[in-house]
Amino acid sequence: MASRPSTEPPRGMRDILPAEAELRDATAGTILTDYRRYGFRRIETPALESLQLLLGGGGGENEKLVFKVLKRGEKLDLGAAATEADLTDLGLRFDLTVPLARYYANNQGKLPDPLRAVQIGPVWRAERPQRGRYRQFTQCDIDILGVASEIAEVELILATTEALGALGLDGLTVRINDRRLLAAMATWCGFEPARQGSVFITLDKWDKLPPSEVRRELEQSGHPGAAIERLMELYSTTALALGLDGMRAQLGNPEADGGFATLSRIIEAVRAAASGRVDIAFDPTLVRGMGYYTGPIFEIRSSSFTGGSIAGGGRYDGMIGHLLGRPVPATGFSIGFERVVDILSPMATRAGADKRVAFLFDEATVDLSPALQAAQDLRGQGHLVALERRARNAGAQRAALEKQGYDGVAAVGADGQPSVQWFADRETHQTESRT
Amino acid sequence: MASRPSTEPPRGMRDILPAEAELRDATAGTILTDYRRYGFRRIETPALESLQLLLGGGGGENEKLVFKVLKRGEKLDLGAAATEADLTDLGLRFDLTVPLARYYANNQGKLPDPLRAVQIGPVWRAERPQRGRYRQFTQCDIDILGVASEIAEVELILATTEALGALGLDGLTVRINDRRLLAAMATWCGFEPARQGSVFITLDKWDKLPPSEVRRELEQSGHPGAAIERLMELYSTTALALGLDGMRAQLGNPEADGGFATLSRIIEAVRAAASGRVDIAFDPTLVRGMGYYTGPIFEIRSSSFTGGSIAGGGRYDGMIGHLLGRPVPATGFSIGFERVVDILSPMATRAGADKRVAFLFDEATVDLSPALQAAQDLRGQGHLVALERRARNAGAQRAALEKQGYDGVAAVGADGQPSVQWFADRETHQTESRT
Repeated sequence: MASRPSTEPPRGMRDILPAEAELRDATAGTILTDYRRYGFRRIETPALESLQLLLGGGGGENEKLVFKVLKRGEKLDLGAAATEADLTDLGLRFDLTVPLARYYANNQGKLPDPLRAVQIGPVWRAERPQRGRYRQFTQCDIDILGVASEIAEVELILATTEALGALGLDGLTVRINDRRLLAAMATWCGFEPARQGSVFITLDKWDKLPPSEVRRELEQSGHPGAAIERLMELYSTTALALGLDGMRAQLGNPEADGGFATLSRIIEAVRAAASGRVDIAFDPTLVRGMGYYTGPIFEIRSSSFTGGSIAGGGRYDGMIGHLLGRPVPATGFSIGFERVVDILSPMATRAGADKRVAFLFDEATVDLSPALQAAQDLRGQGHLVALERRARNAGAQRAALEKQGYDGVAAVGADGQPSVQWFADRETHQTESRT
Repeated sequence: MASRPSTEPPRGMRDILPAEAELRDATAGTILTDYRRYGFRRIETPALESLQLLLGGGGGENEKLVFKVLKRGEKLDLGAAATEADLTDLGLRFDLTVPLARYYANNQGKLPDPLRAVQIGPVWRAERPQRGRYRQFTQCDIDILGVASEIAEVELILATTEALGALGLDGLTVRINDRRLLAAMATWCGFEPARQGSVFITLDKWDKLPPSEVRRELEQSGHPGAAIERLMELYSTTALALGLDGMRAQLGNPEADGGFATLSRIIEAVRAAASGRVDIAFDPTLVRGMGYYTGPIFEIRSSSFTGGSIAGGGRYDGMIGHLLGRPVPATGFSIGFERVVDILSPMATRAGADKRVAFLFDEATVDLSPALQAAQDLRGQGHLVALERRARNAGAQRAALEKQGYDGVAAVGADGQPSVQWFADRETHQTESRT
């Protein structure tokens, strides 16, 4: 006997109620409009990809979090299956970058060159559920494929800061660094080349830990004391204050000069184009997690949110060309869509300025036409109009409708025209919250 | 040694190129704007649901097509697993109606009552791939939960025909019938109550087969000859011409009068509100596949497309309340989103009237600021502007840009302002295709 299924969504996933769904739609709409203006084209890939692709090495730790799909029909042999690989062939994508590499390789002849792509869509990760982190969440990525020059980084940064600004996020700061500089820095300090990754993992915590803790973590990892000493000196407050040029002089490594020049040009171009709107600064402590970055890396913070970055990205020249067998220069920027929606949620009164009207009709009325016509007139005026049966208790109904987010009630007036009664206190409340 | 993964999407799934992605976005946007005007609220559920829910009986044949997800971590015991049920716990949704029932039960206290919900999202079915049918496709549903009166059907039909009209689909015809009338008809003819489903499956082919074929199929199914005779008489051209009232008089079944009265009111209300824009007619041959319908059922066709209906729906009062343990009246309408996009595809010149401009800059230029500023000015004028490196061969570059869908090229003029050169022949072409 089948028990009644739970009404909860699966563990770590969630239902989205109307007000949040509308905020999400409005947020995605604002971002897309901005990116389109910068020449980005929307593309889409399927939610499912082959496990061969998903587990191919481009996803780092995320590869352990793939939801795998059981083979179907004749391909599935339960008796003979010994491992997960025997049982499964597809998986839900864990990001939008691995699918982009496949998409580009598959459709290259039909795509613009360079390709400016924008993707907004769900990804899935079987992480241990925790507050504010979900197993299905939306990612919002832009990527420029086929542009080796730093004009790509400049455009990514301008477009993304403009999109975030259009959403109402204030005090935008861009921190920028370069993977080649990080490598030159680690070499200059004297860290073992093969163990630089571990240095960067610790360095990534620079803005969260005091210097003494950073030093201790490096020591515990067994790095040479002299190298740690040089790093602490290079990253001292005085040294950091010298900025990009100071760091360049300090390292004195001609091989790193290309990286410095690139950063310099990006910073200057963004300052010239967006001064006053955006702050941009070199940050030698910026690392970014993913292993595939090869050049400039960047993050955006907003004074509207103190909990970390709201967008991040960088150049990853090695990855897109992997499936094509030839190099394809690539840069990308990802807006933390879920985080941005969380930040906007308390700020948003309601998506759009349209008024929500409950058009009351009497159940007993035989001819609905006058009500339908009058409701249609209101819709023509740009209002969002739902037909609602008139309840016996007008006061209780009005209270319920207000609670549901309606701005007023309407009915057919004596002249056959719609007659609207706005909820006055709600008006007042809205005016207040907008000032 | 890992071989290079295929660059194809998984079997039966597909990559969406920019022009189609933009058409899909514009189509969804038009539909959503219209439905919002009718008071519908956007909601979202996760792509994954528990298999207990998905295989619970509400999905009919679709339940056989679920992509099932392997259990994870400790829950997965490969050694002990004997059946698919031991190995899997979640599945990808195959429609938006089964998740809606769970969503409503789970969030009822936080949702408006009645709930007017609009959903647009992907669903997955492991069908045998065939031309024009994909294993991931988008559904677009509206549902009104909590309204027992036929005002719900009227609103669904008005909102949906208006949305389809706004998309440019002409000659809209609504065919409407009622499951209760179908039952009364089958009883009147003398078909065995338990075998009426098989009669309806054949009747559903009325507009595809000649009457003689319908008769033969009913005979082959072993229905009584006298019942078949009465059906053929009732559905003769002369009898059908009598319409709703003729059918009512013929059946003479007081139990079916409620159904007739409902249809009559819906037809009158839609005619009064949308005459000239929409044709609506009773069609006793309309059946609709899903077993869960309980009252009025309807389909829309367009003269822009001769291959069948482009939207369909009906009342399904039994299903939503199932998880709540109390009845919830419900009606729904689903636009065949993929079909509509296919129909619009050759009609669409381009989504939106914004001009696409390639802003050319010289790679060697040290100061990008004038180009960035001029490009920004063009964006402020509403153009979609991408920065493109100027190629040596201007003619070839222009041809390539035109092919990629650009409307013109721009550069920094002598006065520092953007100077645009529109592709004149493209202009002409656009004007022609719009008239």
